[in-house]
Amino acid sequence: MKIFQILFLFTFFSITSHASVNDFCVADVKAPNTNSGYPCKPVAKITPDDFVFHGLVAAKTNNSFKIGVTSATVTNFPALNGLGISAMRVDMDEGGLSPMHTHPDATELGIVVQGEFTAGFLTPTSFYSKVLKAGDVFVVPKGMLHFAINSGKGKAIGYVSFSSENPTIHTLDSLLFANKLPSDLVAKTTLLDLNQVKKLKARFGGSG
Amino acid sequence: MKIFQILFLFTFFSITSHASVNDFCVADVKAPNTNSGYPCKPVAKITPDDFVFHGLVAAKTNNSFKIGVTSATVTNFPALNGLGISAMRVDMDEGGLSPMHTHPDATELGIVVQGEFTAGFLTPTSFYSKVLKAGDVFVVPKGMLHFAINSGKGKAIGYVSFSSENPTIHTLDSLLFANKLPSDLVAKTTLLDLNQVKKLKARFGGSG
Amino acid sequence: MKIFQILFLFTFFSITSHASVNDFCVADVKAPNTNSGYPCKPVAKITPDDFVFHGLVAAKTNNSFKIGVTSATVTNFPALNGLGISAMRVDMDEGGLSPMHTHPDATELGIVVQGEFTAGFLTPTSFYSKVLKAGDVFVVPKGMLHFAINSGKGKAIGYVSFSSENPTIHTLDSLLFANKLPSDLVAKTTLLDLNQVKKLKARFGGSG
Amino acid sequence: MKIFQILFLFTFFSITSHASVNDFCVADVKAPNTNSGYPCKPVAKITPDDFVFHGLVAAKTNNSFKIGVTSATVTNFPALNGLGISAMRVDMDEGGLSPMHTHPDATELGIVVQGEFTAGFLTPTSFYSKVLKAGDVFVVPKGMLHFAINSGKGKAIGYVSFSSENPTIHTLDSLLFANKLPSDLVAKTTLLDLNQVKKLKARFGGSG
Amino acid sequence: MKIFQILFLFTFFSITSHASVNDFCVADVKAPNTNSGYPCKPVAKITPDDFVFHGLVAAKTNNSFKIGVTSATVTNFPALNGLGISAMRVDMDEGGLSPMHTHPDATELGIVVQGEFTAGFLTPTSFYSKVLKAGDVFVVPKGMLHFAINSGKGKAIGYVSFSSENPTIHTLDSLLFANKLPSDLVAKTTLLDLNQVKKLKARFGGSG
Amino acid sequence: MKIFQILFLFTFFSITSHASVNDFCVADVKAPNTNSGYPCKPVAKITPDDFVFHGLVAAKTNNSFKIGVTSATVTNFPALNGLGISAMRVDMDEGGLSPMHTHPDATELGIVVQGEFTAGFLTPTSFYSKVLKAGDVFVVPKGMLHFAINSGKGKAIGYVSFSSENPTIHTLDSLLFANKLPSDLVAKTTLLDLNQVKKLKARFGGSG
Repeated sequence: MKIFQILFLFTFFSITSHASVNDFCVADVKAPNTNSGYPCKPVAKITPDDFVFHGLVAAKTNNSFKIGVTSATVTNFPALNGLGISAMRVDMDEGGLSPMHTHPDATELGIVVQGEFTAGFLTPTSFYSKVLKAGDVFVVPKGMLHFAINSGKGKAIGYVSFSSENPTIHTLDSLLFANKLPSDLVAKTTLLDLNQVKKLKARFGGSG
Repeated sequence: MKIFQILFLFTFFSITSHASVNDFCVADVKAPNTNSGYPCKPVAKITPDDFVFHGLVAAKTNNSFKIGVTSATVTNFPALNGLGISAMRVDMDEGGLSPMHTHPDATELGIVVQGEFTAGFLTPTSFYSKVLKAGDVFVVPKGMLHFAINSGKGKAIGYVSFSSENPTIHTLDSLLFANKLPSDLVAKTTLLDLNQVKKLKARFGGSG
Repeated sequence: MKIFQILFLFTFFSITSHASVNDFCVADVKAPNTNSGYPCKPVAKITPDDFVFHGLVAAKTNNSFKIGVTSATVTNFPALNGLGISAMRVDMDEGGLSPMHTHPDATELGIVVQGEFTAGFLTPTSFYSKVLKAGDVFVVPKGMLHFAINSGKGKAIGYVSFSSENPTIHTLDSLLFANKLPSDLVAKTTLLDLNQVKKLKARFGGSG
Repeated sequence: MKIFQILFLFTFFSITSHASVNDFCVADVKAPNTNSGYPCKPVAKITPDDFVFHGLVAAKTNNSFKIGVTSATVTNFPALNGLGISAMRVDMDEGGLSPMHTHPDATELGIVVQGEFTAGFLTPTSFYSKVLKAGDVFVVPKGMLHFAINSGKGKAIGYVSFSSENPTIHTLDSLLFANKLPSDLVAKTTLLDLNQVKKLKARFGGSG
Repeated sequence: MKIFQILFLFTFFSITSHASVNDFCVADVKAPNTNSGYPCKPVAKITPDDFVFHGLVAAKTNNSFKIGVTSATVTNFPALNGLGISAMRVDMDEGGLSPMHTHPDATELGIVVQGEFTAGFLTPTSFYSKVLKAGDVFVVPKGMLHFAINSGKGKAIGYVSFSSENPTIHTLDSLLFANKLPSDLVAKTTLLDLNQVKKLKARFGGSG
Repeated sequence: MKIFQILFLFTFFSITSHASVNDFCVADVKAPNTNSGYPCKPVAKITPDDFVFHGLVAAKTNNSFKIGVTSATVTNFPALNGLGISAMRVDMDEGGLSPMHTHPDATELGIVVQGEFTAGFLTPTSFYSKVLKAGDVFVVPKGMLHFAINSGKGKAIGYVSFSSENPTIHTLDSLLFANKLPSDLVAKTTLLDLNQVKKLKARFGGSG
């Protein structure tokens, strides 16, 4: 049967181009990163396990924000490399919160599965904030300063996905108060009182 | 206090550029679509409600595939326009399945929240298939032919996000058997038996 | 001479494709915006004047921040549409400053032409700040929280360009204190003292 | 049979998202163009004929360059809108040529099907030129100044494709000599002799 | 003559930036691939030969599909790296065919140069199929399932270009029947009869 | 105080994703380049100095074009890698000029800070040229052939930014006359007189 010849023909073409950017590019996270993500692992080393992440489950919430966050991004789920998507699970105890932060290069889409969140993002001329219940989906366009609180009774749970395989979290308090940028410079450029800056520097481990 | 002057200065700049592509562009879904998505609704008409979708809940599963799908994409959640992300909830009764299909321009990331799925995608030279349980995340690179079945006991539930605000679903059976492409042409180009093609054409409402 | 025939041939091709996205697309800023910018003005209406902006000169600095900003972006210089670049001139009197802000979708490149600035940007784990003199160029990657102060004697002047034709400015104080987001919610999600929030809300015209 | 229910379910999703950017966007070439191409024709008006262009055949070569060019780009083949590809057929009589030109935003890939071309492109520090015969493929990276001549006996024929649905042709002689830019300014900025400029201005219909 | 100084000045700038992404990036195909393609060969090693591919000629058609395919893509024509275009020649004997397949990340543009093809692509709600003769151009938007048959007398020949330098071919039969995915799983998720699946598995070399 | 736990939690996430494409990617310019720019230096080696370039000051103008050019692009300012922007300072003595050239992949935005320039760019069917004074901004869309002359009294100074971190300069005279492309081929494909070609080849160091 001649079909093997044509198969060989198609397969040859497929195999050669297979080792390319087109179908997928599982990250070799130990290689130097680039503007388009990590270099690809050789196709021959890829197995089905590469495409599965285990453990997007509830994280501990025994911290001052009463929040638990588990994430599956390119650094712990290398198959996402170049695919422009990642995921996170958020658990908040009653009274918990996710403080003001931005994701400089990722839109965030949140799905509420239990409890009640109040979430919002801020623009120079307005703010967009809503109370969210199970089955609600909320979207925060990339780069917007935003927050969420558990505004209901009991635990609140949500799944979040990002339009980037490698979203960074820029928490406002970490940016301003966890480093050595001089307190008077922070005060001057935020218009916060110097005492306020020093108080939060102490709390977040910053100095200066 | 002179701060109002500078605020005016910054606000003016913000307002003028606010009406732009940069921060967000909620779709005017009645305007003609473009290669970059829908034109934007005027910023003055945007409210917090634009950024929330209600009802990503279980859909009915009383169909032959025992699957229920609810989706939040740009057509019913216009705030996603240009943001490159969307969401879906999938419920499958025991024995249910999502038949072979592709999303030609979207990577799919699935999070299992209940039950057991077996999901996989196919390439010309291999296949990547896994049994998934609650807390597992599975990724299907864009354009790959893939499937999922409920391989466990009881209902299986997952949330899916796409790296596109407007993913299309190309179910293989719909493509091949739900239209009027002549049966002998389908048989010839798929190598399926003509009887098989006619049987499925009858089942999926196609003719020819 | 037959050269007119070939010229006609080439010109015809050029003219037809001329009305396209390829060479330029001067914005029709009154048409609805899209994710890829404004629709194009008809080529027949474009003149050399479209490609020139007048008045990127010193703005008044008689405000509390002692800063003057003039900008040439797509909203007042429509030829920039789709070209991914824009410009700004910044003048700061001695002691002046540009308070903490982000440009969610634009890298900023600043050229110091007179005086001394101290400029910096913040990341979750570090900060990058430098004293800059005439001839120095500073770059702030897109989405990073940053500031600048006139740290020298006399006026400081710089030119800034952005990797977007329509950068927005998200000044932290405007985001947090110039709107109606309830003060206690701001306090809770920033960890600022409620008194601090109320004091700045009063100063920046916010309420709640 | 319950399959119609699930089909309806999948079809509904497909139909709604069908009218989107994802699968295709046949140009409405009478609507204003945008940076991402033309707005889409309604899906309901699309027929198989939209995806076919007729007449990519030999054009007349009775001009001074002995070249005939037929092209299928978005302006006469609207289905190419947003797809980033287009095609051209080039016929050159013996001794014919395609004068120096650039395509500012398109890579050109040429396939020789008959005769012999010599084609090349120029960079600031080198040039890349080759004699090409039937079965040879030549690539000119986008924006490079390039040329082709029929360097063999008899007619030469090639097919060209571009990495843009709407490539423009910037022929050097048209740019420099077919408009009203003053001859002395052209001479000064090209270092050509003024006489040379005037001679070619006369030939190409320019003035000034 | 001082022109050498300015030349040196311009040349220096050109040389340094020459080694960059801007002008071209001939692939070093032995280096690990990335999401944006292969790393570049050093500019100093590039010769005119890099930009030419030899042998885009008729391939043998003595196989069961009576089709011959020759392709010039980044893996055998490294100059295409990053340029988003590639080419293929297709020869089909009378009665030959290209079975149903997709290119997950490439639009296909086909030019008929001899004979008659019938080509078409399928969407969830329609199909777009046409009889094509010499001089006709057909476009298949990326990711669409499509086919072509020689529907005329004698040999049919076409040139194809892709909007990717590295298109993959996902032939439906290879995806479904050439691997070890269990037959019953294939049957269940395609709705094909198990016998049909097994018959084609045997023919295409699959098992399971 | 439990805040350190949550900080650790957020910081961990930040650190891991920090080493990624998202926030910045300072070039390792000694590593092989790619289509998306250079690989990134390790984050641990980045200091504030990486984000500052020194010396964007007047360059010498004692050359035949009376022009001085200083540039800050990715090759000498590696922090620009992936950020899509770069800068240049141009000084022209009275009577100086920047000869016809293109930037194949960069839009150029010029800000006049002293003196008078006349700048323009050319299209196949028109030209766009203007006299520019201090405070004027001029934009040249990418790939367009353009020039500038000092058309006033005394020195003229401008700052230029590009929509690319690595713009190349293709000066027309260098392309045509500084290499070994045979003079008769240049003459034939530009329609210049052979004497003119040879004269300029001699002047620009070309041969052939």
